Amino acid sequence: MSEIRSRIQELLAPIDSEMLEMNAILQAQLEDDSPAVRDMTSHVGRFSGKQLRAALVLLVAEATGRKSHEHVKVAAIVEMIHLATLVHDDVLDGAEVRRRVACVNERWDNQIAILLGDYLYSRAFGLSTTLASRLTSQLLAKTTSRLCSGEIEQSTQRYDFELTQERYEFICAAKTASLYGAACELGARVSDQAASGSFPEDDELALSMACFGEELGLAFQIIDDCLDLVGDTEVVGKSVGTDVEDGKVTLPVLHVYRSASEETRDHIRDIYTKPGIEKRAVRLRESVDLTPGLEYAKERAEELVDRAMARLDVLEDTAARRTLKSIGDFVLGRNW
Amino acid sequence: MSEIRSRIQELLAPIDSEMLEMNAILQAQLEDDSPAVRDMTSHVGRFSGKQLRAALVLLVAEATGRKSHEHVKVAAIVEMIHLATLVHDDVLDGAEVRRRVACVNERWDNQIAILLGDYLYSRAFGLSTTLASRLTSQLLAKTTSRLCSGEIEQSTQRYDFELTQERYEFICAAKTASLYGAACELGARVSDQAASGSFPEDDELALSMACFGEELGLAFQIIDDCLDLVGDTEVVGKSVGTDVEDGKVTLPVLHVYRSASEETRDHIRDIYTKPGIEKRAVRLRESVDLTPGLEYAKERAEELVDRAMARLDVLEDTAARRTLKSIGDFVLGRNW
Repeated sequence: MSEIRSRIQELLAPIDSEMLEMNAILQAQLEDDSPAVRDMTSHVGRFSGKQLRAALVLLVAEATGRKSHEHVKVAAIVEMIHLATLVHDDVLDGAEVRRRVACVNERWDNQIAILLGDYLYSRAFGLSTTLASRLTSQLLAKTTSRLCSGEIEQSTQRYDFELTQERYEFICAAKTASLYGAACELGARVSDQAASGSFPEDDELALSMACFGEELGLAFQIIDDCLDLVGDTEVVGKSVGTDVEDGKVTLPVLHVYRSASEETRDHIRDIYTKPGIEKRAVRLRESVDLTPGLEYAKERAEELVDRAMARLDVLEDTAARRTLKSIGDFVLGRNW
Repeated sequence: MSEIRSRIQELLAPIDSEMLEMNAILQAQLEDDSPAVRDMTSHVGRFSGKQLRAALVLLVAEATGRKSHEHVKVAAIVEMIHLATLVHDDVLDGAEVRRRVACVNERWDNQIAILLGDYLYSRAFGLSTTLASRLTSQLLAKTTSRLCSGEIEQSTQRYDFELTQERYEFICAAKTASLYGAACELGARVSDQAASGSFPEDDELALSMACFGEELGLAFQIIDDCLDLVGDTEVVGKSVGTDVEDGKVTLPVLHVYRSASEETRDHIRDIYTKPGIEKRAVRLRESVDLTPGLEYAKERAEELVDRAMARLDVLEDTAARRTLKSIGDFVLGRNW
């Protein structure tokens, strides 16, 4: 088990029993009449990872005092959508190791990975239609569209060293933070009142929790991008260096590039683009001082986490709120 | 325009205005704030094809006398799900090419295609949550799971010459006929009564229409498999011969194989599996008499269409019912 995973498990100990319940729902959803599908979903189930998004649903529900019996189901649905994106991401990245279990696309092939991702999406949407209110279906359909749209935008912006930080963050918000935001919003919004349809659209607490999730998710993505650049596969628990291989210009690189000499800029672009270079990320960090970029990115992530944490101030001081605060520290403190 | 496409357009002339309305909804759904996404969805919108599934929703609604103002939207949703499967199918085919020629650009196209398919699915599900009843969301989520599960089963059964006809049909039913069945079921089930929740679960007419759609869809797939084997690209309007390349053993081949000598069996397996063979489907039809297999498959398709058509007997004789009958003839009469 990676260090990160064991630390997050310790962190989430207070909601252990709900996470177990959530996982039981998740496992049941991965069942299928088809033996081939069962074989694959059970494989996917093993790389379930940190399950941070599911935990956020449960913790926000608890911390806002709006917990309902449906929240474990909502958490499982959010996690299934995340799993579907992971399976498709693996095809996209050509990643070989996902949480130290061979990726679906390596073990079967891309064809199966695409179908399996589609299968997970459809099971997630299907499960969401069994909830008392349609809110979850609606919010998650919208979030998934935004998520795909963000990934598509990102793909058109590869090798673009003129990318602004604003645009970089806009894309990260869409492709990553949106699901964190939705998880937290659903934590606050799904409730017995929501089921009866009497919940107000302009529910300020729910909107504030959505922002909390988006900010946390954006910080998470920024740190993730740093880890991909300089992290250790052993510690991070997944393949690193893929961003540079794929031409993704992330915040730490953007910052270094922006303030670099013309010569260094040419060098950075060469490492990204010249054919035949092996281990581009390693080459980049060995030949360019990335420290200022990493520090800048980390500061930005800290700023976002601070802003997110401030949103918790209106909530009562409960164990759930304390865990949410620790998650903020965890996001920032991931090893690199 | 392929012959098939112009013939189906003539056939659907009576529902021209509703199909236009359906397409307007479809186009609106393909809009997105992201220019990159808009660019791609407009491209996808152009290969909209026969739109047979959308037409079935509208025709069954009309023929059963249960037409509601929501049917054009339901038809657009069904068509979007079909579009998503087409986009992902293209990646699946592209993945084949990629295994032989590793090409960065091609890989990038695949990434976009996966995301675009996901985007279309999520927009389709999102739109379904705006309908008065949840029935469409529920049925289409279930259908999409079954569709993926069928494709996954199929992929595990490639190069399996011991496949039974029952198993072949089970897979075709899941991967193709299920969406035809859902289209027809929704045509009969979505109604003002359904919106108020007072529609019976055991609505016999709707279930019979679901069977009508499944039988028609299964016949469609069987004929499609015959066309892939011996059809002409010009007439069919899409590339043929891919099944043999992909190791898919379809009904006409299964039938020939079953009654062939040991020698011919070895020969057929060689054509499917030996490395370096060009145009495997052409080689197969030039060296093996496939006529008995094609005739057998066509008879089976006729049997299924007859069974489907008999289900229309309980309906009043209307223009919509006549068009549904013509679609049956169309499915069987596709040129080969």
